[in-house]
Amino acid sequence: MPVLVVGSVALDSVETPFGKADNVLGGSATYFSASASLLAPVQLVGVVGTDYPVEQLEPLGARGVDLAGLERADGESFRWRGRYRHDLNSAETLETRLGVFSHFRPKIPHQFRQAPFVFLGNIDPRLQLEVLGQVERPRLVACDTMNFWIESRRADLLDLLRHVDLLTLNDAEARQLTEEVNLVKAARWIMAHGPRYVIIKKGEHGAFMFTASSVFYAPAYPLEEVFDPTGAGDSFAGGFIGYLARSGDITEPNLRRAVVYGSAMGSFAVERFSIERFLEITAQDIAARVSEFRRLVSFEEEL
Amino acid sequence: MPVLVVGSVALDSVETPFGKADNVLGGSATYFSASASLLAPVQLVGVVGTDYPVEQLEPLGARGVDLAGLERADGESFRWRGRYRHDLNSAETLETRLGVFSHFRPKIPHQFRQAPFVFLGNIDPRLQLEVLGQVERPRLVACDTMNFWIESRRADLLDLLRHVDLLTLNDAEARQLTEEVNLVKAARWIMAHGPRYVIIKKGEHGAFMFTASSVFYAPAYPLEEVFDPTGAGDSFAGGFIGYLARSGDITEPNLRRAVVYGSAMGSFAVERFSIERFLEITAQDIAARVSEFRRLVSFEEEL
Repeated sequence: MPVLVVGSVALDSVETPFGKADNVLGGSATYFSASASLLAPVQLVGVVGTDYPVEQLEPLGARGVDLAGLERADGESFRWRGRYRHDLNSAETLETRLGVFSHFRPKIPHQFRQAPFVFLGNIDPRLQLEVLGQVERPRLVACDTMNFWIESRRADLLDLLRHVDLLTLNDAEARQLTEEVNLVKAARWIMAHGPRYVIIKKGEHGAFMFTASSVFYAPAYPLEEVFDPTGAGDSFAGGFIGYLARSGDITEPNLRRAVVYGSAMGSFAVERFSIERFLEITAQDIAARVSEFRRLVSFEEEL
Repeated sequence: MPVLVVGSVALDSVETPFGKADNVLGGSATYFSASASLLAPVQLVGVVGTDYPVEQLEPLGARGVDLAGLERADGESFRWRGRYRHDLNSAETLETRLGVFSHFRPKIPHQFRQAPFVFLGNIDPRLQLEVLGQVERPRLVACDTMNFWIESRRADLLDLLRHVDLLTLNDAEARQLTEEVNLVKAARWIMAHGPRYVIIKKGEHGAFMFTASSVFYAPAYPLEEVFDPTGAGDSFAGGFIGYLARSGDITEPNLRRAVVYGSAMGSFAVERFSIERFLEITAQDIAARVSEFRRLVSFEEEL
């Protein structure tokens, strides 16, 4: 089953302790698509400027990312420039140029409107709501957000939450949105405002998935080399939704597996710059890493 | 099988967003004993001053903590006063008065010298080494340390590491000791300097156990109310070693279970001030929480 993703398609310039990359593919929809397309067909909606090296998206097209919803507008593409210090925990943004993204109004092509799985990447909640007005009864809608929208578009974001099944956000954003320090309480608050499921991402400390009746936790994979953390969260979302779409199953046991696929894809994302790692790995690599996650947490209770 | 613990026995005064407690039982050996004694007999070695309310230790004696190694010295007991802010992540130390603890030289009673499991709580590595000179071929020696000793007693600490089987320390301490930011590399560094096993504690973000051939991870239990984080690490160690001593089994599957028991005991510790929670809970409560840990992380791989 296909996954529809709406989000940013950007050019990133990134500096880490291990090297630098200039004007490489980035953006939430790009990372999401590169990750999810290893598991299911993806329909991408976004905008780029006239300067975008669209030919570099061809490997994604070749593996099942339908780019019919990628608008090309007059002007400059969205560009982000950032740096990570030695601990790799938080990006320092050096420059953000929204370019054509500042006037983006998502138009969902007719052939994408029946996608059963929808991911609303981190954009203005008003635009996320506009997307929902254009799709037809998806089975599962997930959305992401960030501190900027929580602060500047709180009412719209709360409106959006009433229309989505699942919210993904990081721990700091969960605390900011809910004004609860405790993450269990924060998750309850969010579920009381709409979503049936909440995934709170804690970066190198893993991710929690909360449902009405349970909590599931998956660690981040303990990599010996984290090369570039950019895009880990969107790659997580791509693995999560991609897995659900592949299996067409949204029961709780499958949601748990999907979180592990998300964690696996997040761990691949950070091993190289940009989406490079996703262009190398195979289904076998993914299955092997999922098995490693299982070994990482498994223990037998005493009889 | 009994567990020998050497460490501090203190009086703590703690302030959290939820209340305050004055001059309550604290110290690494106290928390460790309260936790471990729910699983195995404990032999405690430490020192208190003439002001210590030793009658308050009676509930520990009643549940199998042998206090024959608790020295009473002329002077004031070790006192710590601290405060936690709203995020509960790090204690702010307001006052430390070492009192009789500053002249502590551990003397292991003859009847404790054959303890098969030994935990060297966080004290001067020179004293930890002195303890090892007094015990007879224990099956497993674990030790804890802290930033202060890593900085001021580095050579002694490295000497100690050659004589212990397992080191427990938190993530910041692991980075400080090894000068490696990456925790996988930090663990390898430590294992190259002596211990066969390393447990890196990340507080609310769980704990990793590294062996030569594997990594195991247990999350911290997602409590809705964390009341007072003091003593969580020593309670973790008590659950870990207590479980090993109860089962007498140090194979890897059992070490993994022991980490989960440690995490469970850490989660109980933070639900009340001081060791209060350990005086309430039963074997059933512990088994129930271990089962909850299992539900928290369990997922089935696809067939």
